[in-house]
Amino acid sequence: MKIGVFDSGFGGLTVLRSLLSIVPQADYLYLGDSARLPYGSKSPQTVAHYAASSAKFLHTKGIELLVIACNSASAVALDAIRSAVPIPVIGVIEPGATTAANLSRTRRVCVIGTQATIASHAYSNALQTHGLEVKEKACPLLVPLVEEGWTDHPVTEQVARIYLQELFSECEASWIDGVAADTLVLGCTHYPLLKPLLSRILPEDMQMVDSADAVAHQVALVADLNQRFKVSAGSCSFFATDSLEKFRTLGARFLGQEIAAVELVTLPE
Amino acid sequence: MKIGVFDSGFGGLTVLRSLLSIVPQADYLYLGDSARLPYGSKSPQTVAHYAASSAKFLHTKGIELLVIACNSASAVALDAIRSAVPIPVIGVIEPGATTAANLSRTRRVCVIGTQATIASHAYSNALQTHGLEVKEKACPLLVPLVEEGWTDHPVTEQVARIYLQELFSECEASWIDGVAADTLVLGCTHYPLLKPLLSRILPEDMQMVDSADAVAHQVALVADLNQRFKVSAGSCSFFATDSLEKFRTLGARFLGQEIAAVELVTLPE
Repeated sequence: MKIGVFDSGFGGLTVLRSLLSIVPQADYLYLGDSARLPYGSKSPQTVAHYAASSAKFLHTKGIELLVIACNSASAVALDAIRSAVPIPVIGVIEPGATTAANLSRTRRVCVIGTQATIASHAYSNALQTHGLEVKEKACPLLVPLVEEGWTDHPVTEQVARIYLQELFSECEASWIDGVAADTLVLGCTHYPLLKPLLSRILPEDMQMVDSADAVAHQVALVADLNQRFKVSAGSCSFFATDSLEKFRTLGARFLGQEIAAVELVTLPE
Repeated sequence: MKIGVFDSGFGGLTVLRSLLSIVPQADYLYLGDSARLPYGSKSPQTVAHYAASSAKFLHTKGIELLVIACNSASAVALDAIRSAVPIPVIGVIEPGATTAANLSRTRRVCVIGTQATIASHAYSNALQTHGLEVKEKACPLLVPLVEEGWTDHPVTEQVARIYLQELFSECEASWIDGVAADTLVLGCTHYPLLKPLLSRILPEDMQMVDSADAVAHQVALVADLNQRFKVSAGSCSFFATDSLEKFRTLGARFLGQEIAAVELVTLPE
């Protein structure tokens, strides 16, 4: 079974990492659109346009299923991507929201992510259909801090504290009955690398949810349901639209293992 | 006289600001390639490719002179841009380096900028032709911090201190005669917004140089030398490849005045 995994850059490799662990018997084709990253600060139209051309590229490589391992693209471009390719497409928002809904006891959830993801209210909408109350906060500095390698740095801790304090103040102002959120959705594939740091800042009874494992389980489900998919020995190919060396070195941190080879591709506009 | 001003996004508006002050009698066409920003973390090939298509767009609008108000593009793509359009092209590196060379008494200079600009050693090469010794440091977090609006924030001060301490430690280790750099080149058009903050961190006798005024004076010189250029009443048109509202709101901070209208354009790949 050939599975495409698409992200604007490196973050989606945290999703591929979960996929390799939960659905190992598949051939993965990962595309990072690193020439046009970041998607998180761009308009929905531009993100949809870029994501659709990336999806088409992976489809020409023979994938049977596509995972959008990018919160910004999942949030604003899932429909455009589904129109662009005639195969099943799984985004990260719905699986992440469902996991949070299953875990939250207070039925109140917080979400952090990029500007594009938060402005789309995609998590908020998905969580509300599960009957949860939601507060969201864009944290645009966290991606550059992770990419600088400052995943356990005092500056990153200070920035995270500022963002989360603003978020929790808003929760307290809105939820005057004193019942707090007990779940924080990490709505960006870079944020799993900040889990140790965030766990020091968050209230003790607050749990973190990232979409990676949830997506991998949904892929496993789709693969099981579709008898036409053939089990394969398992492989990974990597494609990027820019900066191959950076993809290899930075990507290894997200994937949790070495990346042997990356192929440069040029996507049509 | 129609002058094109090009940047990957908003930073070049600090250069346009100087141009409006020093060469007011011209019609400016500013293009921010905001759909594909940032250039500073991308490969030289990709930056050259994007910058050339942006230059061609401005040339179709009838410009007679093009200012590359982007350090990353000036550093790695000036030749590609000059090949792409049959008009004079002025980058920011050479004017900035010349200004620094004229100002430095100790003949030792430090340069800060994006990853692409620093990795190109364009400032270093330009300064060395003036006989100066140079130390450079990439500061990738400063652009996102400026774009978050944290131009006078304790976190930004802490980040700047970390980068500059690393830079100055390297200077001390290399220049063991105790003669220090007396000039810091701000090799990124976002950094002028950090001048008040940086002046609190820098040694008292260290001066900052940004390219904006230097470029504007060079444009004035070219305009004076070319009798064919007609003086005009002065106007500004703005084009961007994404996020018009963000361009208007964020851009006003860089330009120092309101931006009334921005036109969305799509560039060929």
